[in-house]
Amino acid sequence: MREFRLIDIASQIFRVEWNDVLVGAGDDDCAVVRLGSENVVLTADNLHEKADFPPSIKPEEIGHLSLAVNLSDLAGSGAEPRYFLYTITIRDGIDDEFYKKILEGMKKLADKYRVAVVGGDTDFGDELSIAGFAVGVAKRFVTQKGALPGEKVCLTGELGKAQLSLEQLFSGAERGELAYPESLFTPEPRVGEGVELAQHASAMTDISDSLAISLNLIAKKSSVGIIIYEELLNLQHLTDFVDYEKALELYLYAGGDYELVYTSDDCSHGFVIGEVIKGEGVYLETENGLKEVEFRGYSHM
Amino acid sequence: MREFRLIDIASQIFRVEWNDVLVGAGDDDCAVVRLGSENVVLTADNLHEKADFPPSIKPEEIGHLSLAVNLSDLAGSGAEPRYFLYTITIRDGIDDEFYKKILEGMKKLADKYRVAVVGGDTDFGDELSIAGFAVGVAKRFVTQKGALPGEKVCLTGELGKAQLSLEQLFSGAERGELAYPESLFTPEPRVGEGVELAQHASAMTDISDSLAISLNLIAKKSSVGIIIYEELLNLQHLTDFVDYEKALELYLYAGGDYELVYTSDDCSHGFVIGEVIKGEGVYLETENGLKEVEFRGYSHM
Repeated sequence: MREFRLIDIASQIFRVEWNDVLVGAGDDDCAVVRLGSENVVLTADNLHEKADFPPSIKPEEIGHLSLAVNLSDLAGSGAEPRYFLYTITIRDGIDDEFYKKILEGMKKLADKYRVAVVGGDTDFGDELSIAGFAVGVAKRFVTQKGALPGEKVCLTGELGKAQLSLEQLFSGAERGELAYPESLFTPEPRVGEGVELAQHASAMTDISDSLAISLNLIAKKSSVGIIIYEELLNLQHLTDFVDYEKALELYLYAGGDYELVYTSDDCSHGFVIGEVIKGEGVYLETENGLKEVEFRGYSHM
Repeated sequence: MREFRLIDIASQIFRVEWNDVLVGAGDDDCAVVRLGSENVVLTADNLHEKADFPPSIKPEEIGHLSLAVNLSDLAGSGAEPRYFLYTITIRDGIDDEFYKKILEGMKKLADKYRVAVVGGDTDFGDELSIAGFAVGVAKRFVTQKGALPGEKVCLTGELGKAQLSLEQLFSGAERGELAYPESLFTPEPRVGEGVELAQHASAMTDISDSLAISLNLIAKKSSVGIIIYEELLNLQHLTDFVDYEKALELYLYAGGDYELVYTSDDCSHGFVIGEVIKGEGVYLETENGLKEVEFRGYSHM
């Protein structure tokens, strides 16, 4: 995917070997810098109307999403969120009331996790977009690197709900008819879980694009292999709506659910789906043997 | 201006009374938070191709501008810049090479001020835009509030060069024919000056939109009046190209020069242009008496 090639270009240009930069550009979900006596965790994420906001989304939900995606990144690093800044681009047709509701949605989620929204920049353009910048702190932070053979692979919650609901919406369903509207419009970042898991997880990341991409990144950066056991995957919440094959595809390759995947001896939040092994690559163990889990996901919609 | 009305809406929604939030949303150029033993200064600024990138700008200069505008905000608060993150939206027609040069321009300026670019998010949309987030630290920080009657009003450098050059460009001039191409394409943020001035300035801001807007903000937030003396304004660098009236208009109401305006007993960088008085409002003292300096500026191009 072009996005990952461009990230590689950026990582090479911006690489620095400084004592205060613990995790730098392109290395992980977040950057980690040492400021005074604190590990300060920084992340930036941009959402666009056409690519990231589902049809029929309400302005409050746009505000929620734009903060949630950044809080989820911090959670994936095990950081406690503290501050948030945004830049918002307003297009023609967005009035003051709509704008206000976006910010109110952001504020509601910020209050829930005691995050102060301390700055913003508002300007005008062709497409509604919101870039968010979150600052957190972490006693111990966790990256995608550090998984050890023998550890369990754990998930904080079920996957595929957001993409399933999005596809229902594109197939003509109304908001009230969706299987999991909250997963699509107001997903909950795993803030508390991330902070607690940082105490013992050896590798962790939030699932932005897909479980498959997250696992491949952990495997590659940790120089290990990963096996997922199909029998451990509960697909009931998906097979109630689609056939088994489609459900498995959604579980492995869809994004948007804001869950965390981590490796540890102890799945203290959520449940086990596999294990870390020596070697490389990511595999799904099925009745018919091992299948490769590819490096691909739904890039948004 | 709608931009300022929207900022007011945001300030009301995001107001918090927390001990660790020293300067919050909408209060100033930057937010200031207390993290461990440090004053951490945060700012976010978004640049759009149509509104902010002049015709014929090179990709390296786009990268330069997107960092410079954020460093200038930090300088206006007296902060030493440390870390930078960006989100970049790529439109059709921007190839990997162009993208790479944008980042290289950013990197060159970052290296000059020892700023680590620690994160980025790249995606795709209708218009090229770059949102930047800068993190700095300040032993003593300065806001727009704090000017005292009797102090001098000082500027770190001459104004109007960027807008003059932009108007030349729009009138058909080539890049090589512009009066001040560097002011337009690669303006230099006053990083070192900002940090030094923070030792004694009572109020300070960078001039994003116009001197007139900056002075009105300082006057209003400090509950003082300001008088600028026309005889102290050196317009020679503008009157070489335009008539006196236009030159004065550019000096007072044009943006893009990235200079700092501050109040202090001591103009240790730059020169005096006026003084702080009791009362309210901003005035220009001319041969024909006082004229009001209005709250207006060029909103970009």
